[in-house]
Amino acid sequence: MAKNPQLNANGELKHLLSIEGLPRDIISAILDTAEPFTEVAEREVKKLPLLRGKSVFNLFFENSTRTRTTFEIAAKRLSADVINLNVSTSSTNKGETLLDTVDNLVAMQADMFVVRHASSGAPYLIAQHLESTNRPNVHVVNAGDGRHAHPTQGLLDMYTIRHFKRDFTQLTVAIIGDILHSRVARSQIHALTTLGVPEVRAIGPKTLLPTDVERLGVRVFHDMREGLKGVDVVMMLRLQNERMTGSLLPSPQEYFKFFGLTEEKLALAKPDAIVLHPGPMNRGVEIDSAVADGVQAVILPQVTFGIAVRMAVMSMLARG
Amino acid sequence: MAKNPQLNANGELKHLLSIEGLPRDIISAILDTAEPFTEVAEREVKKLPLLRGKSVFNLFFENSTRTRTTFEIAAKRLSADVINLNVSTSSTNKGETLLDTVDNLVAMQADMFVVRHASSGAPYLIAQHLESTNRPNVHVVNAGDGRHAHPTQGLLDMYTIRHFKRDFTQLTVAIIGDILHSRVARSQIHALTTLGVPEVRAIGPKTLLPTDVERLGVRVFHDMREGLKGVDVVMMLRLQNERMTGSLLPSPQEYFKFFGLTEEKLALAKPDAIVLHPGPMNRGVEIDSAVADGVQAVILPQVTFGIAVRMAVMSMLARG
Amino acid sequence: MAKNPQLNANGELKHLLSIEGLPRDIISAILDTAEPFTEVAEREVKKLPLLRGKSVFNLFFENSTRTRTTFEIAAKRLSADVINLNVSTSSTNKGETLLDTVDNLVAMQADMFVVRHASSGAPYLIAQHLESTNRPNVHVVNAGDGRHAHPTQGLLDMYTIRHFKRDFTQLTVAIIGDILHSRVARSQIHALTTLGVPEVRAIGPKTLLPTDVERLGVRVFHDMREGLKGVDVVMMLRLQNERMTGSLLPSPQEYFKFFGLTEEKLALAKPDAIVLHPGPMNRGVEIDSAVADGVQAVILPQVTFGIAVRMAVMSMLARG
Repeated sequence: MAKNPQLNANGELKHLLSIEGLPRDIISAILDTAEPFTEVAEREVKKLPLLRGKSVFNLFFENSTRTRTTFEIAAKRLSADVINLNVSTSSTNKGETLLDTVDNLVAMQADMFVVRHASSGAPYLIAQHLESTNRPNVHVVNAGDGRHAHPTQGLLDMYTIRHFKRDFTQLTVAIIGDILHSRVARSQIHALTTLGVPEVRAIGPKTLLPTDVERLGVRVFHDMREGLKGVDVVMMLRLQNERMTGSLLPSPQEYFKFFGLTEEKLALAKPDAIVLHPGPMNRGVEIDSAVADGVQAVILPQVTFGIAVRMAVMSMLARG
Repeated sequence: MAKNPQLNANGELKHLLSIEGLPRDIISAILDTAEPFTEVAEREVKKLPLLRGKSVFNLFFENSTRTRTTFEIAAKRLSADVINLNVSTSSTNKGETLLDTVDNLVAMQADMFVVRHASSGAPYLIAQHLESTNRPNVHVVNAGDGRHAHPTQGLLDMYTIRHFKRDFTQLTVAIIGDILHSRVARSQIHALTTLGVPEVRAIGPKTLLPTDVERLGVRVFHDMREGLKGVDVVMMLRLQNERMTGSLLPSPQEYFKFFGLTEEKLALAKPDAIVLHPGPMNRGVEIDSAVADGVQAVILPQVTFGIAVRMAVMSMLARG
Repeated sequence: MAKNPQLNANGELKHLLSIEGLPRDIISAILDTAEPFTEVAEREVKKLPLLRGKSVFNLFFENSTRTRTTFEIAAKRLSADVINLNVSTSSTNKGETLLDTVDNLVAMQADMFVVRHASSGAPYLIAQHLESTNRPNVHVVNAGDGRHAHPTQGLLDMYTIRHFKRDFTQLTVAIIGDILHSRVARSQIHALTTLGVPEVRAIGPKTLLPTDVERLGVRVFHDMREGLKGVDVVMMLRLQNERMTGSLLPSPQEYFKFFGLTEEKLALAKPDAIVLHPGPMNRGVEIDSAVADGVQAVILPQVTFGIAVRMAVMSMLARG
């Protein structure tokens, strides 16, 4: 496999595995490609023929109705044939290996795999296997692998920030919450850095920040009020339910007190700061309803842009 | 929300939530619109482009493969993109509220929600929320909410009766069985009354009739033979399995003896009386196989007309 | 029902229930029809309009994601509307009979049923019922019934053999493994015999061969090395997990020692012998990875041809 498994020999996008390793011009090209797709969504007939006759497999080794739905909609709006495979309940139970499953679907002339897997690196493994079996026309999109990456989420966040703030190079951005266990946070940090954001802040309790988080180029804050001062963009993370009852946190109520985004805390950011959240929200845990439904929240536009970004990625892969 | 949440300012259908509150001319318009769709189903190519590029979400908070299938077929025959969401196993488990789920799907440019929910009023809640968030182009179809309503079932029953009997104003109609727990029965009674049926009879054991059923404008019979005399239309209800083992009924065998429709009891109705059943049937409990498969049964035509009625509702909503 | 329920009065394919009873010219017609479909799969737009507007129901009474996926892809490439019904979790639980379920789907204007059922004969029962209720335009494809038949698997094997070996009448073919419990093996033996293969060998331990297997026209071998000598085609069977732990076999390791296909054993066959496996493979149980991934294996082409064969069957049924 070439040094960068995501790009082909001409430097074009071949797989989307992680924002790490995506050059700035590819990220910008994805955001640019997504822009006209947001208009498609508002048409009477929300269809484009770009993936007509292509077979897209949603290969979900762990259940995520929400993510699967966004990819299914994106693929259908591009006129692809979409096949949903919930592999957790399927032939892997029959003793078949991951790569045998992939080989079989490739033999059925799959054009694209949207892969969700609990293990970090599974989409890489599939991409590598396609490479080594010489299948240049089959593409992989990582839809979340373990704690590692969830690149379309990171990209839709970038789209949203660019839409509302235009110029990345003037921004201070805060990422708040469980950065340790978040597959979203890593993607976000890499994307922001690559796009030239001069200051990225990581805000959270010590138990939920990676020990080496500063090496990613972020400033660390354990005091949310301190960290929010003067920021342009507030990126909230979802607190996983399993963390709330674990030993890392005292209680959801305590968490909300210190790291929940309230109107009072948000007032410390710039007056025109925007608030992002990847969803689904835990209202009253990491975010207060007044903020979630308030004028600074751009959480629903994120969802809309997310469809356009996924259409952009899929159409760029199919074109390549 | 306006007084009648189902109609827009021009009096056109905006949501289908319940037959209660639907004006007679809207009910008639649905039945009229359905008529040509029954012919589509007999063509070689059973497709119309009326919902092309529209995204229809089957939002099922309780499982009902049968009902989901009828809506899926109807939407696909209208060329919609259909996304099935079994929400019982999905993000509501992650602590997201019903309305956050709806907001997210609306942000994905949903055009229509077909909603099934165990709680009465959930489809109303969604419609109200769409209203208050100013989403006039997103429509809700109630596919069954708790014990409350199942309006497309009621409408397909009306279509069936009109198809075989033409004039509602000359009919005597008997509804037989577990009216207390039936979401179908209420829809039926309202529809029949609205369409001008002069006599609607409710037949069943005291334990399975609502105490105030006479206020709905029906005549009550506890003796099935008495109630069947001279009727034109026999509408059987399904006996839910959970009733059979509960304290409301002695046993399925006893129930069949008194309220099961046999050829002998059916002979008390008019000779050309038709027999309806919403399915799935419990043969030998509420209906004898000789009747279910007999010449007076119109149970399978009901299913066929049900697809046409659902296509009619969806196309009227999309047009509005 | 006519003597051969699979053919109509003109001798054309009406249902595909089993390879038993299919005349040689029908089998050849299916293989011939499949041939151009393998090219469709390599086009940019893998779509043909042959089933446009037709409703294909995947009626799966037992779960098999793999088989369901192959039929779903085949039907979508023919532009059908595909409805997946996992009936094990559905209305049969509500007390509805199999034939009531079928009647309901027919009333929804189903054009084709792809049926998977744990009971031998279920697809026959459905075909017979369609016949007796006079539904000549609704077709049944058996996607596996109990231990009985899995005809599209047998047909894709024949397609594969013909593709690589051209002339059936010169071949020696070995079928190896759990012939007793295999729904595939019976289909294979019948197909090979019908197509004129002069020598079919059944290789396996005594406990996994039917007592009367020789009556099917095969030569029996309990020594795999003996049986492999000079064969042109090696058809491996999957060892079901439940057999491995049962009383019929000592252990998977023992099984592999005696009946697992290794390079060393394969060397006893002709040098240009091909190796087939219906998948999913148990590597290290019935087949060694060196063989599964070796140059003689045609296991992935089988999958590709399987889509084309299913497209051929569906298009021939729809045309009839």
